[in-house]
Amino acid sequence: MRPSKLSRRWLLIALTTALMPLAMLSQSPGTARTAEVLDLPSWSDGASKKSIVDFVEAVTKKDGPDYVKPEERIAVFDNDGTLWCEMPIYPQVVFLMNRAKTIAATKGPEIQNLPLVRAATSGDIQTLTSMGPKGTQDLVNILHPNLTVGEFEKIVSEWIATAKHPRFNQPYTDCVYQPMIEVIAYLKKNGFTTYIVSGGGTDFMRPWTEKTYGIVPEHVIGSTCKLDYSSSDGEPKIMRLPEIDFINDKDRKPVAIERAIGRRPIAAFGNSNGDQQMLEWTAAGKGKRLALLVHHTDSKREYKYDRDSKVGRLDKALDEANEKGWTVVDMKNDWKRVFAFESD
Amino acid sequence: MRPSKLSRRWLLIALTTALMPLAMLSQSPGTARTAEVLDLPSWSDGASKKSIVDFVEAVTKKDGPDYVKPEERIAVFDNDGTLWCEMPIYPQVVFLMNRAKTIAATKGPEIQNLPLVRAATSGDIQTLTSMGPKGTQDLVNILHPNLTVGEFEKIVSEWIATAKHPRFNQPYTDCVYQPMIEVIAYLKKNGFTTYIVSGGGTDFMRPWTEKTYGIVPEHVIGSTCKLDYSSSDGEPKIMRLPEIDFINDKDRKPVAIERAIGRRPIAAFGNSNGDQQMLEWTAAGKGKRLALLVHHTDSKREYKYDRDSKVGRLDKALDEANEKGWTVVDMKNDWKRVFAFESD
Repeated sequence: MRPSKLSRRWLLIALTTALMPLAMLSQSPGTARTAEVLDLPSWSDGASKKSIVDFVEAVTKKDGPDYVKPEERIAVFDNDGTLWCEMPIYPQVVFLMNRAKTIAATKGPEIQNLPLVRAATSGDIQTLTSMGPKGTQDLVNILHPNLTVGEFEKIVSEWIATAKHPRFNQPYTDCVYQPMIEVIAYLKKNGFTTYIVSGGGTDFMRPWTEKTYGIVPEHVIGSTCKLDYSSSDGEPKIMRLPEIDFINDKDRKPVAIERAIGRRPIAAFGNSNGDQQMLEWTAAGKGKRLALLVHHTDSKREYKYDRDSKVGRLDKALDEANEKGWTVVDMKNDWKRVFAFESD
Repeated sequence: MRPSKLSRRWLLIALTTALMPLAMLSQSPGTARTAEVLDLPSWSDGASKKSIVDFVEAVTKKDGPDYVKPEERIAVFDNDGTLWCEMPIYPQVVFLMNRAKTIAATKGPEIQNLPLVRAATSGDIQTLTSMGPKGTQDLVNILHPNLTVGEFEKIVSEWIATAKHPRFNQPYTDCVYQPMIEVIAYLKKNGFTTYIVSGGGTDFMRPWTEKTYGIVPEHVIGSTCKLDYSSSDGEPKIMRLPEIDFINDKDRKPVAIERAIGRRPIAAFGNSNGDQQMLEWTAAGKGKRLALLVHHTDSKREYKYDRDSKVGRLDKALDEANEKGWTVVDMKNDWKRVFAFESD
């Protein structure tokens, strides 16, 4: 009985008959156990990896007590420091510093002397970083007023294609954490929908997240400026206005999730105090949940920071994680590899 | 060669072999022509139906000049008057009138005497309707301050399960246009992602759109109130604040689409001046586009209105549709059936 002898009609019958059991098979716990080996190769065996795999097995096990329907398998990821390297400066701030030099030269002193612009052109990283997402959005608005969304997208795309991380000398989109890329793929394979929920600008992230993470533009939730629609000249356009609309940080993250998705996530991934409320909101829901903090403990392969007064991005969230038993990833020990470009 | 004689292993081989050609087959023009017959049964043959089918065939035809990748097949639908009956009163306004009677009775005169509340409790439909989406959101906020998103969802779900349309004596969720339900299903079958983009409240629509239209909560874009996240008592919650955040109407619709999706739709469906900019923005994009207006021309089976001074919801958009060659559905002649509950 060779394949070539099979009629087309019979193939269709076979297909129809086989589809259902195969679909069911793909969600059995056996598949998840295989995934544990195949899908998270950059994770060391240990409590962190186990918490991820146990969670995914539990919520995908049909007829299990923790089963969650695929449409409710929502996972949210912070970006800076959770999916890509945020040190020594947020990449979006580097983008703005690069742009500031170009743009300020074409402007008068009323722009050049604005404290944020001065900080950007002079490389005053501490001022820029200490301003947080609001400062970043303010600077975006000062530097890029009166652009259409398409024009801004083009500027970001050109920058991200050429800019390189100062220490790793690699494109920023390669300075992404390989173990987290594997988590995104593993979740998607198990029926999850994955969102970015970041303090970074929505319009700064959307041009490259699909290629870099496999996360489509409509699943990118970030900080935003106001927009204006007009069609006075017959050609409709959407302009970015130099006015902040939403800063997606801290207690605003659960709010943004509710507004954009309307479902409470069952898994949340972050690395700083800005993610605390998002993890808290996710973890407090009914049923099995996963709340995970990436703890930067590896100064050799990446960076080491948490309560450090100069950075101070992770103290309250770490306390709550320890108190409530959230997963805290020890980057140094839990990750066999941080970046894909590392030599073996 | 009976099915039962086939080994499991052979079924899997057959399945793998057959999957690819079958998947390709499902996007061939031949399938679309079948769909024309099978998928839009409530549409009369004519220019309106043809414009929908021609569009879908064109953008799904691989290697065709108008081919659009599935992830870019975004279709947006207004709700009131486009997917469900908005006459004689917007259902959300009926909901608020019902609620107003219950709630005002428990409040003091400072609430009872607010003009909007007075209009709602006295059944002053003209005032309520003339206020548009902003009035509706204001009334929501007056009547439902200090509710969590979950509490509000429960109130809406209970109302929608029992309330009936005054003329048709059917639940509002049955007073939906069968031909439009068929369009949603037809588009989804052809790889589209379908969104609701409505002046109605996001939180008012999300509880029932999935069951009614097959449109999931995260694809519902409407008017919103501000939200507040807190976890002071250890139990995190998201409260609805009595303050308007966004009125999703007219020029705000393209803005909301850009913010939520970040892609320009290739198909847009509306029925009023409030949808004009959304259709304009969609139609002006490059490549094949579909902009469609539902024209209410059937007073017998539904309602007849356009430039009528009392309602006046469709004049400017109709002019632009005629000028630019958008599809204008003549409800009376293009739809064999308006509602599924109609007797044959």
